Amino acid sequence: MIYLDNAATSTPLKESVEFAQKYIENYYNPSALYSGGIEVSSFLKEVRAYIVSTVCHDGYDCIFTSCGTEADNTAVFSSAKRGNAVTTLGEHSAVFEPFKELERRGVEARFAKLNKDGSVNTDDLLSKIDGNTSFVSVVHVNNETGAVNDINAIAEKVKKINPKTVFHSDGVQAYGKMPYRLSSAVDMYSISAHKIGALKGVGALLKKKNISLHPLIFGGGQEGGLRSGTENVFGIATFYKAAQVRYSQIAADRDRYIDLKDLFVSTLNDEYVKLISSENCAPHIVSITAPKLRGEVLQHILEKRGIIVGTGSACASLNKHSRVLKECGYSAQELDGVLRISFSAFTRPEDVVEAANGINDACRELKKVIV
Amino acid sequence: MIYLDNAATSTPLKESVEFAQKYIENYYNPSALYSGGIEVSSFLKEVRAYIVSTVCHDGYDCIFTSCGTEADNTAVFSSAKRGNAVTTLGEHSAVFEPFKELERRGVEARFAKLNKDGSVNTDDLLSKIDGNTSFVSVVHVNNETGAVNDINAIAEKVKKINPKTVFHSDGVQAYGKMPYRLSSAVDMYSISAHKIGALKGVGALLKKKNISLHPLIFGGGQEGGLRSGTENVFGIATFYKAAQVRYSQIAADRDRYIDLKDLFVSTLNDEYVKLISSENCAPHIVSITAPKLRGEVLQHILEKRGIIVGTGSACASLNKHSRVLKECGYSAQELDGVLRISFSAFTRPEDVVEAANGINDACRELKKVIV
Repeated sequence: MIYLDNAATSTPLKESVEFAQKYIENYYNPSALYSGGIEVSSFLKEVRAYIVSTVCHDGYDCIFTSCGTEADNTAVFSSAKRGNAVTTLGEHSAVFEPFKELERRGVEARFAKLNKDGSVNTDDLLSKIDGNTSFVSVVHVNNETGAVNDINAIAEKVKKINPKTVFHSDGVQAYGKMPYRLSSAVDMYSISAHKIGALKGVGALLKKKNISLHPLIFGGGQEGGLRSGTENVFGIATFYKAAQVRYSQIAADRDRYIDLKDLFVSTLNDEYVKLISSENCAPHIVSITAPKLRGEVLQHILEKRGIIVGTGSACASLNKHSRVLKECGYSAQELDGVLRISFSAFTRPEDVVEAANGINDACRELKKVIV
Repeated sequence: MIYLDNAATSTPLKESVEFAQKYIENYYNPSALYSGGIEVSSFLKEVRAYIVSTVCHDGYDCIFTSCGTEADNTAVFSSAKRGNAVTTLGEHSAVFEPFKELERRGVEARFAKLNKDGSVNTDDLLSKIDGNTSFVSVVHVNNETGAVNDINAIAEKVKKINPKTVFHSDGVQAYGKMPYRLSSAVDMYSISAHKIGALKGVGALLKKKNISLHPLIFGGGQEGGLRSGTENVFGIATFYKAAQVRYSQIAADRDRYIDLKDLFVSTLNDEYVKLISSENCAPHIVSITAPKLRGEVLQHILEKRGIIVGTGSACASLNKHSRVLKECGYSAQELDGVLRISFSAFTRPEDVVEAANGINDACRELKKVIV
């Protein structure tokens, strides 16, 4: 089986799950005051500091959440309380839907246009920011096309227009996939554990210490009062190890993804398939379309050959067409035929060649039936 | 090591963790449309139905959350949107703190008084309900004293006063510990996985199908749109197996807890120690006080003997005195000396005898130093 839907979720790393076993032995509640509990509590502190160190300077806190979606929601609802809030039409639903909710709560939501590859039109975004903009959220790597927004540069420009605006970025598809450091202009940053070889059930919001948050979930005061509820210690332990593995070889990973993308794209038959992801897109996510064909049908044919690919965002599987790719300007026929191929550190060159050949064959067969 | 702080969190069941291993193999995103994803999605459906069947009839839905606290918050903030909301002074902070937040959001929060054992004064509670009461929440088993509120009877009385009131109960300390069925008058019920031998990171809100919920977390539309975010499949799998184990022997477990409590209490020296939990309290949680002594010091001495006990709610470990026990009418000297002993299915008669003797010895030693 060749798994190429790593943007939906990733294969758990063996060393990550093995490392976490000790928190089945040491299962104490991190809020407990006996030594077992204190040990777990110190461990969580260690993980928070490590996660911050991977992409930020130490002026940031790491607040554990149950998923990337919760981290995004916490950022949006904490900071977008008045005036207007600005985001892009390329956001994952974890930011897009909270923005829709903002409108129902009386905060004006503004959505910036996209370029053809899914990156934000920066001029359009900046034109929407004014003195009443309380919050801006721009996705780092688009989950459907891999388009990279230069969030450091954008955040700095946003702050020049309105220094009081809180700037957030959804980094779920960037974190652990490519090397970068966050500029101090980025106030908050959401990440997710299960996209990088840890288990599902853990996310985090990285947040500059001077940014005040309003919790979504109230209770026992865990996470400095910002996120109550007993911590998912086992899941957090898998996240720690997975992040360590990824950041120990992050530049090499990125180089491998570049080679894999090149090989994959050059093996595709451009008679059938058109590339959506541009050259500037992050190389671990490749979006293509086979115009006039149906993505789900291609996906199904490929699955029979043991090749697993996505058809877009797994989180939007109930919608016919991708909301984001529609905003990129693709036609209905192009939107029908979308496939998303996403790599992990386990992906081998022979896998992407087999996948590309499988896609070519599947398109050829389907074309015969249709014409 | 004798672990008697099972109300804080429980030892993960071996069979529960083993069972969940298959969802490390089958790690697909439950929203994915290929067979691996569909399989996980069907599994989650199966677990939801099973969890509902353990305590409700099939007119209820099970919505997975990341913890009991999130389930409580979802219930409170969904239903308490106008007028007044009524709860008890005996709630866990997962309900109490959201009620405090309600006040900041312009909903009047009313708190009913407690009896000496921590159960709610039902007359006081009912006197607070009127035609403007949108929401009532009454904890099922108090997490500090084990006091049981007859939530079925209370819910029915509440509905007689105002049939439109939504009735919720926090069942975190009841679920999987004692046999009961919920009356249809209970609209929502919160439970937590890690209290019954599953891992941390999973809770659920059981909810009557006709009750409409407003999500706390918006995004990809998981859990029927009521709780977005990729599901913690591994954690949910541990919950499934742990619930199966507990409900296969729930009456026997309860009988064992009764015997353990009897043995523990009769071994305690009442010259030093006074019982807080009444005879009517759930037998798996026993709260005691050694007046004039300090609970944390006793806890520490016991830990040195290999006996782990609690000093109250693990989630409120930063507060000096228990908010709830203060409301029960205990004096400062009594509040200083509180210990909470809570059993699991692993607890043996010899464990509780050793713990009681340990408490007696520790009190005797401390008394010598103090007098």
